[in-house]
Amino acid sequence: MTERTVGELGEARLIARIRDRVPPYGPSVVLGVGDDAAVISPEPRRLSVVTTDALVEGVHFEWRLTTARDVGAKALAVNLSDLAAMGAAPLAAVLSLGLPESLEIERFDAVVEGLIDVARRYGVAVVGGNITRSPGPMFIDVTAFGSVHPRRVLRRSGARPGDELYVSGTVGGAAAGLRWLLGADAARVRAGEQEADGSNAVMDAVARYRQPEPRVRLGMLVGRNRAASACVDLSDGLADAIRQLTAASQVGARIEGGAIPVHPSVAEVEPDVERRLDLVLSGGEDYELLFAVPRRRRRTFLALSRLASLPPVTRIGELTASPDLVVRRQGHEAALPRGFAHFAPVG
Amino acid sequence: MTERTVGELGEARLIARIRDRVPPYGPSVVLGVGDDAAVISPEPRRLSVVTTDALVEGVHFEWRLTTARDVGAKALAVNLSDLAAMGAAPLAAVLSLGLPESLEIERFDAVVEGLIDVARRYGVAVVGGNITRSPGPMFIDVTAFGSVHPRRVLRRSGARPGDELYVSGTVGGAAAGLRWLLGADAARVRAGEQEADGSNAVMDAVARYRQPEPRVRLGMLVGRNRAASACVDLSDGLADAIRQLTAASQVGARIEGGAIPVHPSVAEVEPDVERRLDLVLSGGEDYELLFAVPRRRRRTFLALSRLASLPPVTRIGELTASPDLVVRRQGHEAALPRGFAHFAPVG
Repeated sequence: MTERTVGELGEARLIARIRDRVPPYGPSVVLGVGDDAAVISPEPRRLSVVTTDALVEGVHFEWRLTTARDVGAKALAVNLSDLAAMGAAPLAAVLSLGLPESLEIERFDAVVEGLIDVARRYGVAVVGGNITRSPGPMFIDVTAFGSVHPRRVLRRSGARPGDELYVSGTVGGAAAGLRWLLGADAARVRAGEQEADGSNAVMDAVARYRQPEPRVRLGMLVGRNRAASACVDLSDGLADAIRQLTAASQVGARIEGGAIPVHPSVAEVEPDVERRLDLVLSGGEDYELLFAVPRRRRRTFLALSRLASLPPVTRIGELTASPDLVVRRQGHEAALPRGFAHFAPVG
Repeated sequence: MTERTVGELGEARLIARIRDRVPPYGPSVVLGVGDDAAVISPEPRRLSVVTTDALVEGVHFEWRLTTARDVGAKALAVNLSDLAAMGAAPLAAVLSLGLPESLEIERFDAVVEGLIDVARRYGVAVVGGNITRSPGPMFIDVTAFGSVHPRRVLRRSGARPGDELYVSGTVGGAAAGLRWLLGADAARVRAGEQEADGSNAVMDAVARYRQPEPRVRLGMLVGRNRAASACVDLSDGLADAIRQLTAASQVGARIEGGAIPVHPSVAEVEPDVERRLDLVLSGGEDYELLFAVPRRRRRTFLALSRLASLPPVTRIGELTASPDLVVRRQGHEAALPRGFAHFAPVG
């Protein structure tokens, strides 16, 4: 092959490169990549769950801060996180790519491989897509489908005053990882002037930013066991997630600032103790899940969270009848800050 | 409201503007815009059909050649055309928008209104979406869902030698309309130097380019009555559609050049008779349907096509056991030209 860029290769041959990499379909895929549309056999007596999310070069990723494999993987992972927040089992995805003509074929292949790797790991059939030229940045838009039992849907609404708030895993790691990548140390590493010498915590934070792990199994199990009254994912940060869940459920919340499970890297990248809580509340992209748990379901919920290979969950506060959103910290109370906004410029 | 651009308004308020415009949902939508994902109740004993297609500013549309309403309408229409080509009934759609921060709110609203207008016309529930900033062109990516009876799927494969090829409506109009828009007359109209003085045929061609009409009802009726052995839509031109259908069905085709139902504007925008057939075969975006019809189904197929408010269908050739793709014209035969490529620059 003498072509070097996707512009030289053209749409049909790019689609063929995706088709060649897609794993064999299971019996639920009637028609995959290659017709006017894909055809899927839905599971009987299940509802279909649908979500869409795009990553745009210069907004959600920059080539100097990540790898092409990670971009492809993240494009699917962020959608699986949305399915997880509904308690849905992921089934299939379609992929819409906008590519600058100068994009290297090698990079294109790596994006596709990263996405297919995540698809394989979570049993998602890549059934179709679309490739177009982009005269600006690259974008990768994924729509993912799942299924859920009608009475086991985890909504944002449904929580009540007195329910406890739990978050999975740790918070602030992705934002801390991004901050480290944007800083001077990472620039020197990229320039080859020094070895990557972040601590283990910082390197883990970078991995959380680049390769988020959607909490698919946790969301499904909590949904199946009706162990939560509401759920939302942390794509736009903890403060935003709390705001979304409480607004949909028409309740308020009191958060214990000291109870939030902060990623260990946060203390390293943010020396100012006051600002640390802001990073934890407003930094986005952790893709953890926030649950509202009625007190009578607490034992079931905590029993689930102790199952092997599930992330830990931590109680961070409770819902209130008063609509205020309050964070308590070292004796005093403050209003919850605004969340992370993807529409605002980053970097 | 003092804000003028989408960047000033921000993601949450843009989503609210979409939600406010979405028509009330029918009973099959369990959860629409506003949660982590949408939840739909699939029709029992039907397969789900899924397709995705994006329009990118500078590739698929330019603001100087179209209106914002038409961009929104077309973004959904091109996806409904794919569903029609499968014989599927459209049900729902999700919308992913990439917006330059400087985009006027007025333009944003018009794009959304155009899309919702088509959604309302075809009974499509707009159940979710995503808005992000784009540092380059605007893009609008739609994923549409439909349903079809398992034994009534119209595939690209399934046609056999001896089957007749039919095309709906007329061909070449969208390409002729675009060519007129790119020409000197249209530039003078835009500059206010003269009134739009294209003939009726040319004005109709411009409308076909800007406001394609997906052949939803025709596709569904042909599928339901099993009146065709294969089908594909004409998004990338007639030659490309013939190529896709014959490749998937492993047959060849002999096309009667003189039988193709050419849009009346083509003769006006392309005075050269030789080049006219090229425009008709390779010009894209007509969004008509190409059907392979077994001879024993011809009467059923033609009876359907005579139903009120369906476009006419025209026999343009037949499929052959020999794999060649041949166009006959005024006694001599030539190879079918390559189709329209969205990946190549336009305009």
